[in-house]
Amino acid sequence: MLLLHRAVVSALRQACRFRPPPSRLCIQACSTNESFQPQRPSLNFSGDNSSTRGWRIMGALLGFGTALAYHDHRCRASQESPPLYTKEEVYSHRSPETGIWVTLGSEVFDVTEFVELHPGGPSKLMLAAGGPLEPFWALYAIHNQPHVYELLAQYKIGELKPEDSAPPTLETSDPYAHDPMRHPALKVNSQRPFNAEPPPELLTENYITPNPIFFTRNHLPVPNLDPDTYRLHIVGPPGGQSLSLSLCDLYMFPKHEVTVTLQCAGNRRSEMTQVKEVRGLEWRTGAISTARWAGARLCDVLAQAGHQLSEKEAHVCFEGLDSDPTGTAYGASIPLARAMDPEAEVLLAYEMNGQPLPRDHGFPVRVVVPGVVGARHVKWLGRVSVEPEESYSHWQRRDYKGFSPSVDWDTVDFDSAPSIQELPIQSAITEPRDGETIESGEVIVKGYAWSGGGRAVIRVDVSLDGGLTWHAADLDAEKQPPRKAWAWRLWQLQASVPAGQKELNIVCKAVDDSYNVQPDTVAPIWNLRGVLSNAWHRVHVHVTS
Amino acid sequence: MLLLHRAVVSALRQACRFRPPPSRLCIQACSTNESFQPQRPSLNFSGDNSSTRGWRIMGALLGFGTALAYHDHRCRASQESPPLYTKEEVYSHRSPETGIWVTLGSEVFDVTEFVELHPGGPSKLMLAAGGPLEPFWALYAIHNQPHVYELLAQYKIGELKPEDSAPPTLETSDPYAHDPMRHPALKVNSQRPFNAEPPPELLTENYITPNPIFFTRNHLPVPNLDPDTYRLHIVGPPGGQSLSLSLCDLYMFPKHEVTVTLQCAGNRRSEMTQVKEVRGLEWRTGAISTARWAGARLCDVLAQAGHQLSEKEAHVCFEGLDSDPTGTAYGASIPLARAMDPEAEVLLAYEMNGQPLPRDHGFPVRVVVPGVVGARHVKWLGRVSVEPEESYSHWQRRDYKGFSPSVDWDTVDFDSAPSIQELPIQSAITEPRDGETIESGEVIVKGYAWSGGGRAVIRVDVSLDGGLTWHAADLDAEKQPPRKAWAWRLWQLQASVPAGQKELNIVCKAVDDSYNVQPDTVAPIWNLRGVLSNAWHRVHVHVTS
Repeated sequence: MLLLHRAVVSALRQACRFRPPPSRLCIQACSTNESFQPQRPSLNFSGDNSSTRGWRIMGALLGFGTALAYHDHRCRASQESPPLYTKEEVYSHRSPETGIWVTLGSEVFDVTEFVELHPGGPSKLMLAAGGPLEPFWALYAIHNQPHVYELLAQYKIGELKPEDSAPPTLETSDPYAHDPMRHPALKVNSQRPFNAEPPPELLTENYITPNPIFFTRNHLPVPNLDPDTYRLHIVGPPGGQSLSLSLCDLYMFPKHEVTVTLQCAGNRRSEMTQVKEVRGLEWRTGAISTARWAGARLCDVLAQAGHQLSEKEAHVCFEGLDSDPTGTAYGASIPLARAMDPEAEVLLAYEMNGQPLPRDHGFPVRVVVPGVVGARHVKWLGRVSVEPEESYSHWQRRDYKGFSPSVDWDTVDFDSAPSIQELPIQSAITEPRDGETIESGEVIVKGYAWSGGGRAVIRVDVSLDGGLTWHAADLDAEKQPPRKAWAWRLWQLQASVPAGQKELNIVCKAVDDSYNVQPDTVAPIWNLRGVLSNAWHRVHVHVTS
Repeated sequence: MLLLHRAVVSALRQACRFRPPPSRLCIQACSTNESFQPQRPSLNFSGDNSSTRGWRIMGALLGFGTALAYHDHRCRASQESPPLYTKEEVYSHRSPETGIWVTLGSEVFDVTEFVELHPGGPSKLMLAAGGPLEPFWALYAIHNQPHVYELLAQYKIGELKPEDSAPPTLETSDPYAHDPMRHPALKVNSQRPFNAEPPPELLTENYITPNPIFFTRNHLPVPNLDPDTYRLHIVGPPGGQSLSLSLCDLYMFPKHEVTVTLQCAGNRRSEMTQVKEVRGLEWRTGAISTARWAGARLCDVLAQAGHQLSEKEAHVCFEGLDSDPTGTAYGASIPLARAMDPEAEVLLAYEMNGQPLPRDHGFPVRVVVPGVVGARHVKWLGRVSVEPEESYSHWQRRDYKGFSPSVDWDTVDFDSAPSIQELPIQSAITEPRDGETIESGEVIVKGYAWSGGGRAVIRVDVSLDGGLTWHAADLDAEKQPPRKAWAWRLWQLQASVPAGQKELNIVCKAVDDSYNVQPDTVAPIWNLRGVLSNAWHRVHVHVTS
């Protein structure tokens, strides 16, 4: 870790040597009038390509590209001579009483009023109070987006004095340095934390998604856990005894296997973004995958710890061993009634498709909650407790909830909506691709369909004319028992392309065994976090004559 | 019964005295060019109003208006001199080998090829083989529709010889004569069997629907059962013992109470009809109501008979004591897993809102299956058995299923779709009414929302501009436990009418706690039986300036 830290600081210094004076950078960046590239700031200053590359590498490595990109943004903002502050003055503003100030690059912001509105929760933003944002934005690449810069610009109150505006010295080494290697086929939406999806053409190649291309949704760096010393802490009931289970202890419970599809609440968010901006990763149709999971049933483990189903509402809270710089772990919860129901088949899983869990998927133990949104399948599981309330985790209470299209970040009340548990009916087309050119004659349309809560997909309708007429697709042969249809159905339709047709507007929509259907369009289900995007999936293709 | 029979025959004879010769009737009826009135045939022959009234009464009383109406239709068909047959010749055609003939009025039809296509099932049509349709159509007023006449006309092969073409002598007395009195507020969709819904403005007046206006969906005449001699037959498991339970026996089981909304699968069918013709009763938004039900839990009764939850799929089959002329009872089934789950709260109910069940709602005992389509809540319950297969009832296997919009009566395969059990998310506006004129200033919009399977309604969005912008409505305070939200939520929205607005396109859509939503439009969920009509509900109103 120390070595890495040194390497990073050295690379930073080297990159800095090539850095042109701020004013020139500003003029150059503005004059190029380039559109903003969130993941790869590429400020075209003349001649020196190596310096550009240097910054690119640093940007990718540390998320510090944020600062440069923001610099670019700043140029478009006011050009008056701003008030100047020292680092010490900024540092003296760390509470609601004094005001809460932060810096980004050489700029100073008073974010007192924004703290409560911070999508990541006030506590996360308070970590940066009185100092630079960069070390924290390095952890959360989600900030690397134009709307974040625009939002922040509203709170600008001045600049750091020139002697204080050098790039901040990083005091943390790269927390993502120990993340595992990933399969090159994955389409990466965010490197840090790592979030990636398989390309559509691979996604529905197999009913069971191969582990290396199973979609990955991490909220934090991947912890590096030693299976020999790993312990899972099960908090006992009041007056009872807690358990500390090694992997071997967990293997002693009856092994239960089940095929389950996991889907991120943000799957297909990119279609919502096309309606109106949302905050979140730009998942396309691939934030969904299917595996054969094996492990101990949660109900067996809870029973061993002395827990019983109670008359009162209760929740099983999970904590991961992944954590942010303050030591706050990823967390989530599910209702106790689901956890204790043997038919719900909730697992403490240690195998994925016959292998130990890959590190990206929770090695050595994760929760698998069939029929429920991915966010509750807590990975790198460290602690399980039964509580009268839902998990107090940010991800349970201040994220992963759905709202009316009329709700924006000024009016949102996270307490007014239930946490997402079961997901609604979903389907998408994986072949052909949007914009593809196909041959006339016949077209083969392929895709997936899935519904939450164990509800089976009973039908997929496909249209070649934008939804005017429909064909029922062929569903694959895999069927699961009633009320336990935890996995997707793959489907395909072979249809004639009407003669003379120059293009096709292919649409799919699925029906589950409660006869729930997908909504026709995206706008009426748009929500500020871009979750639950399950409108008809539409693909436009050209036909060669 | 005998008295009634005599009265009917006498009325028929009296009506016949005023009947003009067929040819004149034909000419008159054709020349008036009146649009067809399914429920009230009103053939305007000149002068004699009393005769018209006589026929109207007879039509309403016996469903024999069918024959007259069809006569009208026939006039528009071919005018050539048709082959003539005797009753005996018709009677000799009662099997696929000889051909299957029927008569309606004086016309003869070879329906051999249609028998398998009969929406009511081949067996029902075979009852009429070799003879007149009238006695059977009197039971099923559903036949009283233009498309039925048009369909039948395609099979016409000739006419009865004049001496054989007198109206058929009714051999059955009116099977509906003992139906109970009904509340005048009910909007009647069909008298025989009786089907009626409360008007929207009464529907959401109360969270609990008063018994007299609870929507009524009967498939057959209402049986007249004596509570003292009533017995419920519970078939025991193989090798076990069956139970024959009196009402008092049933009262000995723990009494369980639960508030449950019942909805007919055909609720809001009238909106589907506007897209394209469907077969079924024209329910508007009122085929849904809510009551407090009390009775024995089905799981307790089944357990007493020795039934257990099995590993294998199994079904609990219910038979009503209502039956058709062949003695075939109404029947339906639900999965054994639901029946045996105490949390599913399936009842053998003997009380509705603190009263014994009204006769229209199943006196003395009906099934209540929370969260499940009304068709499975079998009324006048006579027999319960556990079977490896679903009920073989027509209403389980050949009705109450959903299909793709592309499926028509030529291509439908009833075995390809699962029977409807849990219903999808639903909502509708009850105030203001479609076409109403409201005052400018403020508008109050009211309605209901409900979802199947115990899924709670978490939000209702209302739009005043056809779905461009949305307001979240206020939900009533009634909430039920998680996973057991069996009853609807009433809602209302008070909103300003934008100044200068001359009209409003009011829309509502609901969301349940699996975040399932309603589809935007009707056409893509259209199906040949017009069930599962749950698109956004739309109401157009005018605004006074």
